[in-house]
Amino acid sequence: MKNNQLMIRGDYLLKLNRKSPIPLRRQVEAYITNQIATGEWAIGSQLPSQRVLAERLRVNRSTVTAAFDELTAQGLIAGNRGGGTQVINNTWGLMAKQKPADWGAYVEAGQFKPNLPMIRTINQAEFIPDIIRLGTGELSPDLIPSNDLAKLFLNVSTHGMSLGYSEPKGNLRLREEVSKFLKPKGVAADPESVLIVSGALQALQLISIGLLDRGSTIVLEKPSYLYSVHVFQSSGMRFYGLPMDSEGLMVDCLSQINKERGKTIVYSISTFHNPTGKVMTSARRKSILNVCERMRLPIIEDDVYRDLWIDAPPPPSLKSMDHSGNVLYIGSLSKVLSPGLRIGWIVGERSVINRLADIKMQNDYGSSALSQWAAEECMRSGMYEAHASYVRDQLRIRRDYMLDLLSVYFSDLAKWSSPSGGFYVWLKLIPDIDPNTLFECALANGILLNPGVVYDRAASHYLRLSYAYASINEMDQAIPALRKLIVNLAEEKV
Amino acid sequence: MKNNQLMIRGDYLLKLNRKSPIPLRRQVEAYITNQIATGEWAIGSQLPSQRVLAERLRVNRSTVTAAFDELTAQGLIAGNRGGGTQVINNTWGLMAKQKPADWGAYVEAGQFKPNLPMIRTINQAEFIPDIIRLGTGELSPDLIPSNDLAKLFLNVSTHGMSLGYSEPKGNLRLREEVSKFLKPKGVAADPESVLIVSGALQALQLISIGLLDRGSTIVLEKPSYLYSVHVFQSSGMRFYGLPMDSEGLMVDCLSQINKERGKTIVYSISTFHNPTGKVMTSARRKSILNVCERMRLPIIEDDVYRDLWIDAPPPPSLKSMDHSGNVLYIGSLSKVLSPGLRIGWIVGERSVINRLADIKMQNDYGSSALSQWAAEECMRSGMYEAHASYVRDQLRIRRDYMLDLLSVYFSDLAKWSSPSGGFYVWLKLIPDIDPNTLFECALANGILLNPGVVYDRAASHYLRLSYAYASINEMDQAIPALRKLIVNLAEEKV
Repeated sequence: MKNNQLMIRGDYLLKLNRKSPIPLRRQVEAYITNQIATGEWAIGSQLPSQRVLAERLRVNRSTVTAAFDELTAQGLIAGNRGGGTQVINNTWGLMAKQKPADWGAYVEAGQFKPNLPMIRTINQAEFIPDIIRLGTGELSPDLIPSNDLAKLFLNVSTHGMSLGYSEPKGNLRLREEVSKFLKPKGVAADPESVLIVSGALQALQLISIGLLDRGSTIVLEKPSYLYSVHVFQSSGMRFYGLPMDSEGLMVDCLSQINKERGKTIVYSISTFHNPTGKVMTSARRKSILNVCERMRLPIIEDDVYRDLWIDAPPPPSLKSMDHSGNVLYIGSLSKVLSPGLRIGWIVGERSVINRLADIKMQNDYGSSALSQWAAEECMRSGMYEAHASYVRDQLRIRRDYMLDLLSVYFSDLAKWSSPSGGFYVWLKLIPDIDPNTLFECALANGILLNPGVVYDRAASHYLRLSYAYASINEMDQAIPALRKLIVNLAEEKV
Repeated sequence: MKNNQLMIRGDYLLKLNRKSPIPLRRQVEAYITNQIATGEWAIGSQLPSQRVLAERLRVNRSTVTAAFDELTAQGLIAGNRGGGTQVINNTWGLMAKQKPADWGAYVEAGQFKPNLPMIRTINQAEFIPDIIRLGTGELSPDLIPSNDLAKLFLNVSTHGMSLGYSEPKGNLRLREEVSKFLKPKGVAADPESVLIVSGALQALQLISIGLLDRGSTIVLEKPSYLYSVHVFQSSGMRFYGLPMDSEGLMVDCLSQINKERGKTIVYSISTFHNPTGKVMTSARRKSILNVCERMRLPIIEDDVYRDLWIDAPPPPSLKSMDHSGNVLYIGSLSKVLSPGLRIGWIVGERSVINRLADIKMQNDYGSSALSQWAAEECMRSGMYEAHASYVRDQLRIRRDYMLDLLSVYFSDLAKWSSPSGGFYVWLKLIPDIDPNTLFECALANGILLNPGVVYDRAASHYLRLSYAYASINEMDQAIPALRKLIVNLAEEKV
């Protein structure tokens, strides 16, 4: 008997009721359906042969055949090449099967075909124990102040914590803190113009369902992190990627866009861009703002890396220079403090914030009151600022270490710029290697990579490295190992 | 000058630059656009007259006229009947205007036309200070153990708290607790078959986008809470409401449905139904399960009120009797412990849970790790069970008090049944009163009602009263006041 062939439960014989008015054929059918539905017989596994089943259930073979035929008609099982029969679906599966196109398929845009299977593999591989995550865009667990956050709750009695549903825009005290937090950054945001969200991804999701029609166009940097998440494409938006130069998103390209009023929006990670690490210059920010105002083109500014500068504070955000209300600004605690809090914010024109708040309520009745309370305490107590400063110091060490390793092991194999903040080194490999092969070989060697193609189909020579997640020791192991892999693959090719 | 007429900022004169190559007309246009975009001149307000503007800005009237014409063409302003000009939109507003149909309009189904403005008013009125909320489906703030929850964090060092991103299905330890929690309730749920979500509403939203096509049909009890939320209708689903009798959803009607395979699903609040308070009998549960299995019709069982029994524990859930994997089961901490935690769960067939977990990650990268940790602690430490028992005692007192008041003040005006658990009394008024009028009069008198029409367009004689939120004192005030209002409205009509 094959390994993946299914066992028949010994006790089932008792359940076929020969005196029942229900025909045996139906009872066999019900038995198989039940085995499949309960997951006892999983999708993809081989059913016992009709002969074996008939023997075990003590029924005629023709009874089993009739049951098989019915279940085949229902789409639950199917014959395979070897003459056997396989489970191919279940009730819920039949339902889920209806719309693979919505979540499985990206919308084509700007010639970009995202490598969905690779993104899936990356997400799953993150949970492999001991894998070295060389591209992960998160703080290393030892940079997350979990204990300090827990300690915040020691003082809770002084202050009271409301754990009912929160106001539609989020806890007012947190919104006031966000407002104070943004002021020295040049962003004048009244608490009524702030919406608390469960992280920047939810911000994008709310914008996508609340402000944009299917068929709208998102103009964005190419490459961009946004290509790696489903949020806009799965709502039927199209992407229009614009090239970047050393100053950031190229403004000339922007002004040449043939936009449809109300159906086009710009998305920019203006500071410590993901994945390139670039910072848009002040001059470029001004031009982009002017062009967008003139074209009446709204901007989503994703500014979650701002506080992670290493060499010098970055230029002011687009939002800080925005006097026309054209910019919708996204911030978050995830990159500096803790992704587990799931706290971010959107700042913008009040009517837009009201609308997004309405949609947020319809989606999840607001973010965790506990997380909102902790976020407020962190910001109010100065813990956020102190931790941001600590993280900057740690990132400097990690960045410098990675850059040193790269110059030892990759100077003949790749080109890169030194990022002045954020998490990423955008590495351009010189040898011509298939990114899927490299990704898989690295994975087989315990190294998880984020290949450039995830952020831009054309970026097949690139890797997004991150110095935020992997430890110094892991870098020490992984960078030389990666060199070896690349050299081998390049040689194989020749 | 009218009250709502806009002021011109005195300092603006300085900003018109007569030496600029930009024509004055464009500068005036930019000024007005800026006033609108910054919210200085809000939508709906009256612009200064062209004459006044021309004087203040020291430009020719024709310059102002040209600017007005351009902005009218752009859809930002419009002339009104009195000969004046109004702000009618702004940049973001133009964008938001594109899709009012998606969020503003419900999908028609089963003849039900939900009263959207009333639901909006209810949501907003909940934040009016001192309003008596006689229909609110939440625990009163004094029944939420905020201090106890805060104290959980005192022991945090014994256990560690991970505040990174969590696993796709949620924190494993919490899923293990949920699994243990459900076992004595007869639901055998492996932690891998549990998905942690941010409350039951998010559960529905994930199901809606992950498993159902536009145009799918949700078969549900009529009336139902589900009619009052947008989650399915805004994704283009249709509702098919079935009547209830004293045993619950009528099974004969169910079996007569002409369903399209893979496009129809049943939604039931089987225990302490919202809004009627009914409990489906064991016999009815069995019939419904059988019919659904035969018809291969999946069921969503929304079981968030189960632990709030007052007189005796309710019969086992549909899920506990489900051996075919046909039931997707929703639970939550919101109704018993704290809505602010935003923690609920979906239990179901593993492939469905995997799919929903995938979508959850794409929406918000998982629920708050802090909330998940607190939820786990509550369940593990026995605090949840202890608090549930306390809440049951309190609800008994509140329910009995409300029923006593009703028999004093409403025995000639209404009919109702005594609920055996949950939050609600489904009150059927005898006099024929327009529900909108009653709602508005009550609101004007400081009482917020949840009229039956919110849950079923045909339920115009009903009110959903809740004994969970309003205090005994508030009931003492509001029930007699409500009697007076209803008597007056009934007399007016005659």
